[in-house]
Amino acid sequence: MNQFVIGIDIGGTNIKFGLVSKKGQIVSRLNLKTSSVGKNVSQLAEGLVSACLKLISENHLAKKQILGIGIGLPGLVNIKRSIVYSLTNIKGWKNVPFKKIIEKRIGISTFIDNDVNVVALAEWKYGAGKGVTDLICMTLGTGVGGGLILNNTLYRGAGFAAGEVGHIPINEKGKKCNCGGFACMETVVGNQYLEKKAKKVFNKENITLEQVTALADKGNKKAILFWEQTAEHIANGLIGTINTLNPSLVVVGGGVAKAHKYIFPVMRQVIKKRAMHIQGRMVKIKKVKLGQDAGIIGSQVLALEMLKIR
Amino acid sequence: MNQFVIGIDIGGTNIKFGLVSKKGQIVSRLNLKTSSVGKNVSQLAEGLVSACLKLISENHLAKKQILGIGIGLPGLVNIKRSIVYSLTNIKGWKNVPFKKIIEKRIGISTFIDNDVNVVALAEWKYGAGKGVTDLICMTLGTGVGGGLILNNTLYRGAGFAAGEVGHIPINEKGKKCNCGGFACMETVVGNQYLEKKAKKVFNKENITLEQVTALADKGNKKAILFWEQTAEHIANGLIGTINTLNPSLVVVGGGVAKAHKYIFPVMRQVIKKRAMHIQGRMVKIKKVKLGQDAGIIGSQVLALEMLKIR
Repeated sequence: MNQFVIGIDIGGTNIKFGLVSKKGQIVSRLNLKTSSVGKNVSQLAEGLVSACLKLISENHLAKKQILGIGIGLPGLVNIKRSIVYSLTNIKGWKNVPFKKIIEKRIGISTFIDNDVNVVALAEWKYGAGKGVTDLICMTLGTGVGGGLILNNTLYRGAGFAAGEVGHIPINEKGKKCNCGGFACMETVVGNQYLEKKAKKVFNKENITLEQVTALADKGNKKAILFWEQTAEHIANGLIGTINTLNPSLVVVGGGVAKAHKYIFPVMRQVIKKRAMHIQGRMVKIKKVKLGQDAGIIGSQVLALEMLKIR
Repeated sequence: MNQFVIGIDIGGTNIKFGLVSKKGQIVSRLNLKTSSVGKNVSQLAEGLVSACLKLISENHLAKKQILGIGIGLPGLVNIKRSIVYSLTNIKGWKNVPFKKIIEKRIGISTFIDNDVNVVALAEWKYGAGKGVTDLICMTLGTGVGGGLILNNTLYRGAGFAAGEVGHIPINEKGKKCNCGGFACMETVVGNQYLEKKAKKVFNKENITLEQVTALADKGNKKAILFWEQTAEHIANGLIGTINTLNPSLVVVGGGVAKAHKYIFPVMRQVIKKRAMHIQGRMVKIKKVKLGQDAGIIGSQVLALEMLKIR
């Protein structure tokens, strides 16, 4: 009897479902527009359960062939009590026992975690971090997030809020950050800041970060410098974490990572120069491998880890 | 039959031995001057073994009553292969299989680790961090070191070099650090820097940090400000690690921690203001509890952890 996990990646625009084999292969997919489901707890639960049942029946499977359901959510999740404390940008979610709600409706073991943690799990088990014991997984976007695999386990922290590498201060003084702090790495490498900076640098009212990368590809020096400066800030932000955690890998994903050929060499150079000898020498910088599938696949890893199927 | 662990704390000046009960009580002690033993591998091994045998016989014990020997060393230790890669300030130690060397001479299971890691183990098991799952243990001295307990386990990192909280950069530019980097926290809160700063602030050729604290105790505003500024740098250095690791405790030890009544309130204030909401709200700052005994007691914890006696 073939067994599968359903991996669910809840994003702001799409909810992606995947029927995932025990080896991490996505054998069937299903997509919903997030807006089509509704954002309150029972609407979302109903939407997820219907889609799961559809995915099961479309693939001519029996429920008992589903080992579990994993869900990555954009929010803060207490993994021990399986409660969603809050969702980013979606109001009305407060201390929701979402695992129980789903399980009650569908009768399949369900596991939930923060979306960035789930991406870290995916890259560690099947992606750029395969075989690595200690890694930092960083996603560069509007927000700069992260997940930590330490001692071959996802590290969540005492309050399930660990991994916030975007909110490492890079200076003692600096701009206010959305997190409430100031001078965080995110304030100088987050997309909003970079887009503003690009407008200034190129003196254009509208220029996207993709266009900056395209310019760099054509040899535009300002564009190359733009990404090199960004890389220097990212590396400066990571040095402390590299010295403290001594990981063997930093996996970088998100939109900005598309400019990796300008960013990574400078990151490596700064780390080599600035990090401690052992830490700097052993840490590798790699691009994420699973891209858009990381959320689905990581949800499979979450479920299997929680079910202790390795 | 009573059972014990021998905990050994190898320092630059003294080597301290303790016969430690399974509950962490030091029931008998022995001290050697480090200089009296000799620093090469066989001299040190010989000195440690003689002292252990003396401690056993003086307490009328049989060898089989010693569950194990734990040793905290000032250096880099590969805990999996039980090899001392190098010792700080002592030349000639390179890839030394010190566990095997001691075991061969004394016939008792022996475990070795870095001295700061051992202190973290002690504070977690019997000290300020008792019952805490995730903590940072920081020692403020000439060097600023640290040990991490994450998920109820000492976290050593991929190259056994984790915990270097003193080498978290606090700015993108700054003074060169002994570690090879620059602008590390240690460059502005390490004892050497603080002693120089004190001379300037108080316009004296000789003033110790203890004297600065004594002045602060008398209400001297410059002295109070001196420690408050130090506290601000320490907190600024820790914010990134607090946001990233979401620990519930930072345990602070070392000479500078004697000024804790000026340092801790400012650290708490800066962390509250600058760290992320959950991380900042839940992290406590406490003084180490075991003081000079931490090395001996932590070596007992190391041995029992490795022997899986909990």
